[in-house]
Amino acid sequence: MGFFNKAYHPPGTAPGTLTERPVEAPRPPRIRLTEYAPDVFLEQDIATPADCKPYLESPSITWIHVQGDVSADTLRNLGELFELHSLALEDVLNSGQRPKLDVYGEQYFIAVNLPEFGNGGIAVQQISLFFGRDYLISFSNAVTDPFEPVRQRLRNSGGKFRQRGVDYLLYTLLDLVIDAGFPMFERFGETLEDLEAELLGKPDRSTLNRIHQLKRELLLLRRSLWPQREVVNALLRIEQPFMTDETRMYLRDCYDHSVQIMDLLETYRDMATGMLDVYLSSISNRTNEIMRVLTLIATIFIPLTFIVGVYGMNFSHDTSPWAMPELHWYYGYPLIWLVMILITAGLLYYFRRNKWF
Amino acid sequence: MGFFNKAYHPPGTAPGTLTERPVEAPRPPRIRLTEYAPDVFLEQDIATPADCKPYLESPSITWIHVQGDVSADTLRNLGELFELHSLALEDVLNSGQRPKLDVYGEQYFIAVNLPEFGNGGIAVQQISLFFGRDYLISFSNAVTDPFEPVRQRLRNSGGKFRQRGVDYLLYTLLDLVIDAGFPMFERFGETLEDLEAELLGKPDRSTLNRIHQLKRELLLLRRSLWPQREVVNALLRIEQPFMTDETRMYLRDCYDHSVQIMDLLETYRDMATGMLDVYLSSISNRTNEIMRVLTLIATIFIPLTFIVGVYGMNFSHDTSPWAMPELHWYYGYPLIWLVMILITAGLLYYFRRNKWF
Amino acid sequence: MGFFNKAYHPPGTAPGTLTERPVEAPRPPRIRLTEYAPDVFLEQDIATPADCKPYLESPSITWIHVQGDVSADTLRNLGELFELHSLALEDVLNSGQRPKLDVYGEQYFIAVNLPEFGNGGIAVQQISLFFGRDYLISFSNAVTDPFEPVRQRLRNSGGKFRQRGVDYLLYTLLDLVIDAGFPMFERFGETLEDLEAELLGKPDRSTLNRIHQLKRELLLLRRSLWPQREVVNALLRIEQPFMTDETRMYLRDCYDHSVQIMDLLETYRDMATGMLDVYLSSISNRTNEIMRVLTLIATIFIPLTFIVGVYGMNFSHDTSPWAMPELHWYYGYPLIWLVMILITAGLLYYFRRNKWF
Amino acid sequence: MGFFNKAYHPPGTAPGTLTERPVEAPRPPRIRLTEYAPDVFLEQDIATPADCKPYLESPSITWIHVQGDVSADTLRNLGELFELHSLALEDVLNSGQRPKLDVYGEQYFIAVNLPEFGNGGIAVQQISLFFGRDYLISFSNAVTDPFEPVRQRLRNSGGKFRQRGVDYLLYTLLDLVIDAGFPMFERFGETLEDLEAELLGKPDRSTLNRIHQLKRELLLLRRSLWPQREVVNALLRIEQPFMTDETRMYLRDCYDHSVQIMDLLETYRDMATGMLDVYLSSISNRTNEIMRVLTLIATIFIPLTFIVGVYGMNFSHDTSPWAMPELHWYYGYPLIWLVMILITAGLLYYFRRNKWF
Amino acid sequence: MGFFNKAYHPPGTAPGTLTERPVEAPRPPRIRLTEYAPDVFLEQDIATPADCKPYLESPSITWIHVQGDVSADTLRNLGELFELHSLALEDVLNSGQRPKLDVYGEQYFIAVNLPEFGNGGIAVQQISLFFGRDYLISFSNAVTDPFEPVRQRLRNSGGKFRQRGVDYLLYTLLDLVIDAGFPMFERFGETLEDLEAELLGKPDRSTLNRIHQLKRELLLLRRSLWPQREVVNALLRIEQPFMTDETRMYLRDCYDHSVQIMDLLETYRDMATGMLDVYLSSISNRTNEIMRVLTLIATIFIPLTFIVGVYGMNFSHDTSPWAMPELHWYYGYPLIWLVMILITAGLLYYFRRNKWF
Repeated sequence: MGFFNKAYHPPGTAPGTLTERPVEAPRPPRIRLTEYAPDVFLEQDIATPADCKPYLESPSITWIHVQGDVSADTLRNLGELFELHSLALEDVLNSGQRPKLDVYGEQYFIAVNLPEFGNGGIAVQQISLFFGRDYLISFSNAVTDPFEPVRQRLRNSGGKFRQRGVDYLLYTLLDLVIDAGFPMFERFGETLEDLEAELLGKPDRSTLNRIHQLKRELLLLRRSLWPQREVVNALLRIEQPFMTDETRMYLRDCYDHSVQIMDLLETYRDMATGMLDVYLSSISNRTNEIMRVLTLIATIFIPLTFIVGVYGMNFSHDTSPWAMPELHWYYGYPLIWLVMILITAGLLYYFRRNKWF
Repeated sequence: MGFFNKAYHPPGTAPGTLTERPVEAPRPPRIRLTEYAPDVFLEQDIATPADCKPYLESPSITWIHVQGDVSADTLRNLGELFELHSLALEDVLNSGQRPKLDVYGEQYFIAVNLPEFGNGGIAVQQISLFFGRDYLISFSNAVTDPFEPVRQRLRNSGGKFRQRGVDYLLYTLLDLVIDAGFPMFERFGETLEDLEAELLGKPDRSTLNRIHQLKRELLLLRRSLWPQREVVNALLRIEQPFMTDETRMYLRDCYDHSVQIMDLLETYRDMATGMLDVYLSSISNRTNEIMRVLTLIATIFIPLTFIVGVYGMNFSHDTSPWAMPELHWYYGYPLIWLVMILITAGLLYYFRRNKWF
Repeated sequence: MGFFNKAYHPPGTAPGTLTERPVEAPRPPRIRLTEYAPDVFLEQDIATPADCKPYLESPSITWIHVQGDVSADTLRNLGELFELHSLALEDVLNSGQRPKLDVYGEQYFIAVNLPEFGNGGIAVQQISLFFGRDYLISFSNAVTDPFEPVRQRLRNSGGKFRQRGVDYLLYTLLDLVIDAGFPMFERFGETLEDLEAELLGKPDRSTLNRIHQLKRELLLLRRSLWPQREVVNALLRIEQPFMTDETRMYLRDCYDHSVQIMDLLETYRDMATGMLDVYLSSISNRTNEIMRVLTLIATIFIPLTFIVGVYGMNFSHDTSPWAMPELHWYYGYPLIWLVMILITAGLLYYFRRNKWF
Repeated sequence: MGFFNKAYHPPGTAPGTLTERPVEAPRPPRIRLTEYAPDVFLEQDIATPADCKPYLESPSITWIHVQGDVSADTLRNLGELFELHSLALEDVLNSGQRPKLDVYGEQYFIAVNLPEFGNGGIAVQQISLFFGRDYLISFSNAVTDPFEPVRQRLRNSGGKFRQRGVDYLLYTLLDLVIDAGFPMFERFGETLEDLEAELLGKPDRSTLNRIHQLKRELLLLRRSLWPQREVVNALLRIEQPFMTDETRMYLRDCYDHSVQIMDLLETYRDMATGMLDVYLSSISNRTNEIMRVLTLIATIFIPLTFIVGVYGMNFSHDTSPWAMPELHWYYGYPLIWLVMILITAGLLYYFRRNKWF
Repeated sequence: MGFFNKAYHPPGTAPGTLTERPVEAPRPPRIRLTEYAPDVFLEQDIATPADCKPYLESPSITWIHVQGDVSADTLRNLGELFELHSLALEDVLNSGQRPKLDVYGEQYFIAVNLPEFGNGGIAVQQISLFFGRDYLISFSNAVTDPFEPVRQRLRNSGGKFRQRGVDYLLYTLLDLVIDAGFPMFERFGETLEDLEAELLGKPDRSTLNRIHQLKRELLLLRRSLWPQREVVNALLRIEQPFMTDETRMYLRDCYDHSVQIMDLLETYRDMATGMLDVYLSSISNRTNEIMRVLTLIATIFIPLTFIVGVYGMNFSHDTSPWAMPELHWYYGYPLIWLVMILITAGLLYYFRRNKWF
């Protein structure tokens, strides 16, 4: 997940310009049409937006889902068919948007971010949604179609889901996108618990890198997910005949979930920061311990080495009686050892009293 | 207390799905019915929710308390009996909710967190409450029934408590849940005082771990308790005939307590952070002290060892008069000692002047 | 000043329960009645609250001050006499309240905190005030009666003070409590200046402990004093005939003072935090300095000691002409010294160039 | 980009005083007049403001762009011609303004900041805009004219752009200024990724300097760009006939972009702060590693050196049988080696067990 | 600039008490009367407030400026003459006020802070202003009269300034006080740039002290200047006939300046904090570097010294053929050197590979 993930036009470009971003391995878009009403259910893959024209007049709900890298042409055709605003169409292509809800008359545009575990870490995929009285158009370029479970429920629900309006469909999709945060944060929680265990045991350089990695991912996720709360909140305030009180209740639940995910994110960030402090402290602690051993050894042996050095000097008793008479004492050698043992014992006592080992 | 403690359904599940969480040792729920009015008082254990039907019609207040791991069936039955919203029922099972107050018409749902000291630290238990005009349903899966003191007061109050409405019962339960924070924070305060004493004495690695542990618990409690303030505040703004001004006065007191607990929590967190800084400083201080001893010893003995090394060289006066003539001076050996004593004294004076020991 | 200073009842106790806290050396309360009007002034010690009954009917202002550890009975009697709410009475006994203003109909309850220098540091004492149209009841368990100066002014003011209503009395008491912060913060300021001088000089372990102590006291004071601002602000918004515009002007001044004290507190906290950073830096600095000396000495003498060690080896020219021929050179010994002096000079030059000393 | 970049008059100067700032290499201003309407398009360089008088009466839109260091005289002339307020004119000369929107009756003044990559890092250039019903005057002293792309679009747009009012022109210019942040933050993002790679590899002193440099630039950019959001927001609330709803939609997009840039800025700052922590930890880690090697070598060799020192003492067996009898044992020398090898092995085992290498 | 700079009365003093603060070298106040109208201009030094009585009745604007340490008597006289509120008069004497605007009916009191460079650093001087319909009274005890430039402009303006009301005079004085921040922050900016250059070069202990000093000054200035913004904002909302829209435009400019100064202050504080981190990192870096040299030298020479120690032992071949046979090899000595050179080369290669030097 890169630091900068916003596609943009060179400053000065006319607003609403549609330019496809060059991608390495473009996935051709699959356009799925789902048409439903209490007694109608139809699922179909269509080739061009124009193919869905016949269904637009009917009172049933039309859901068009575009999965993959949508081309500028397809987008332009959809735009003409549903009278979508060019600024919103630009935002579909220029992915990496900040989550938002834009109002264009009776039409709404929502951009939200779906977090995904991919290879090499976490990624967020922009999900774009247009909706009006009886239609919803969704765009996703996640690897797999994230909305398959919803289609499944529509197929199986035996009317319960199909009796509701476009507002409930919208809620279902949003709920799915927001709840995708739960398994992700569950995994983050496990990572944090692992890191904590490591920290209380023997932390090393890789612990530091993993804490940093976690903080980085939480920081980037925060930028992507934080405004989602506001999007749901703005939805709750939409005054439209197709936005029922029943659905508002569901959206409030969805809002609670987005708040809860932000609570988790903030707690985890605080936790990771605290861990960094503990890591730093424990390194200092270890340097301390090593220093203590070194100082102990050096402090004991350096004076002893000096003493044995003294008696290695070549002053000779032959020259002067002042020259190292100890060498000629009968108990000179044992005496020197005694002195050295006393010094060692004294130092050890001093260290022990100061709690140095 | 884990980092992630929210039970959730896989994203895409239909809202309101009731799935029991597998628990290791499920405690069968005990359903206690308490029915009271100024002149009525009845306490009874019931087997299924249906058993409380006869009491619902009466004007007296019905309090059903479910203690233990409630099954999805019981919940579904209760839901049908009291027309509880499926989203709220889901929140009872999916414990780990953020404290909240949900409004479903004239029915209210409250989720709050009861902090408990358990084995292995602190835990929070979700308490779920439904209430309407003349009934209150509470769910708790704490180890022991937390509301026994309330039932005790109802039994003994001789009418005073029983004269009041469901709003007063609700206040009593909430007050108990929120005040449960006081003994907990009193204990935290003692821990902090212990840690402080340790810090000013001889802090070690375990001090660091205990500070970290404390910060972690405060962080997790914060996530669980912080929104409780808002729940009480939202209650204060409910406009319902059964919510009296007298009870509002009591709820305001309850609100004050929740604010006070948050004040304590924030002060303790700041305190713990400050302690970490002091800990870090005191480790640096100790490294410093050890370094000072090492440097002192090394700086004094290294030059002396060099000097005695010089006179241990095997240059011989026999070869040349230039070769270590000192060895042949009459006072050579005492002179060398004098030189060494002077060097030591000079260094000690220098160190003392620089306040190194 | 402890971390946890809130007296509380076990969770589940009935609200309004009055329980005296066991204190080590209870000071029997002294109840002082002051009755005044423009032309009336009466001061009297009363034994029981009932003694003040005769004065209640008169239009003059009745001020009852209870100094010391008030008993539950006295409190209950006062409560009955003035119809004080039981929740507020509970708050008088359960001291350690968050500063607050509670409204009970036409009666008001205020809890504020008076900071005091005691032995062993700073303490805060709760001051509780009840007031209505023409009476004010105050409770204090500070060591000495803090309101004596006010009574003094009432005695001496010659009518000026006595012409004003209960609102002005309330202002006078609040102002005294809030302004008690000024001498305290002046002393804190001096402590900070001392610490700063120490920090720029030779900081040691005790400097760290004093900074920590200061931060701790500021943190606890913050919890006690911060909400006082809101209390004064809430007072300003009271709409009652006995609250005059003139007094509001005075209360605004009082509000300014409480803001100023919080400004001081926040500045001091930032300052203390900054000092901790400087302390940490200066320890690192000193470790550095000591290391530099050690490295200097070691780097110079270790090679020299090696050289003199070489010529202490017992290889003998007698065995082989390859064995240490230098020992047999005529200028061997002076040459070795020359080599050692050159090495020392080179190292010193190298260190000087790198600015190591 | 300096810390202080605000041109100002000495305190006490009359407001609206126009003083040219002395610049090292003043670029003479180029005044470009662009006049357009659906069927009119005219581009012209003019020498003095008076030259544009003939175009002012026409209903077409007049855009005057002054590129370069504008003189006080030109400014004064423009001011008289368009009745510009002297305070706003002063703000054009005293560049380094905080982005703002000032309202002078039906005339508006906007100051915004254009970020530029220059030699030696990032710079911001103030762009000043005056606009009214049918005119817009812009000032820029960036190195190259930033608005050339807009003029290009006006030339080529074949009427689409020209059909819109002065509000759309204003949006186009503002959008260009704000979107100039995107390429800049893309580059910052790359720098951050480089720094991160360095940090996980072998960070050195220059890494620290680069992180510091980045933080510094982000901090200064924040001051320059943060208030831009508010400027666009204030524009959205202007109630004037020439401010159409269509343009408001575009300005909302522009507002989204400015929010997104601030999100990026804040995320990058948090990231850079996190990197500093990791850098500090990794230095501590490295000190640790080096200490470990030193301690290892010293701890093994210091005792051995002491032992060989012992047998270098000149105690002689001739004097006393107590004097170093080991020297006369048949296997004395190999025994000493054995002892030394055992000591080394013991220490290595001890270190290995403590995971020191 | 001290931490505590608020003059205050002992808690319990009657509000509005006027007590002169004892100053070391009191400067006798100079009272300057300036009377002006479009066609009137009069400047005069007066001895006592009563001397200005004749001018009060006239419709022209009366500006009384008191420069120096005003006595309680003068203040009391002025208070009686202009009916100034005693609380405001107290605030003039008890300098060190938080900037504020107090409303006393149709009279206003403003306290603002003028930052000054004095000897020994920065100081702030309280400027107190009273104003009403046609008079303004200002108090300053700065060293020199800060308002001389304004009087200069009044003298020279030829009517332009004199045509305006008291509101414009007030703006002029406030603008001067607020703009006094610009030269100060320009100097701070230069200090920061110096510090930054030092930091990237060779930072030492004095760099730390200077950063600390700067942070301290910014912290204290923040307390003094931050509320000034609110004062100007409150002025903008005054609804009085003598407050014209034209002047409001000027005050808005003044407000912008105070916001800009706070922006600078906050940026500088963040910058200084960042510098402290870099300083800490660079000390750690340097400790590291020194450690590396020490370790290098020690690691190479300690083993070599051990080896030469071995051959200094007095084991004799005469006693046993096992005793140091190397001493008797023909190429023993060169062989030892070869071994030592190989060890050195090996260690150097090892260090180089680990990038230790």
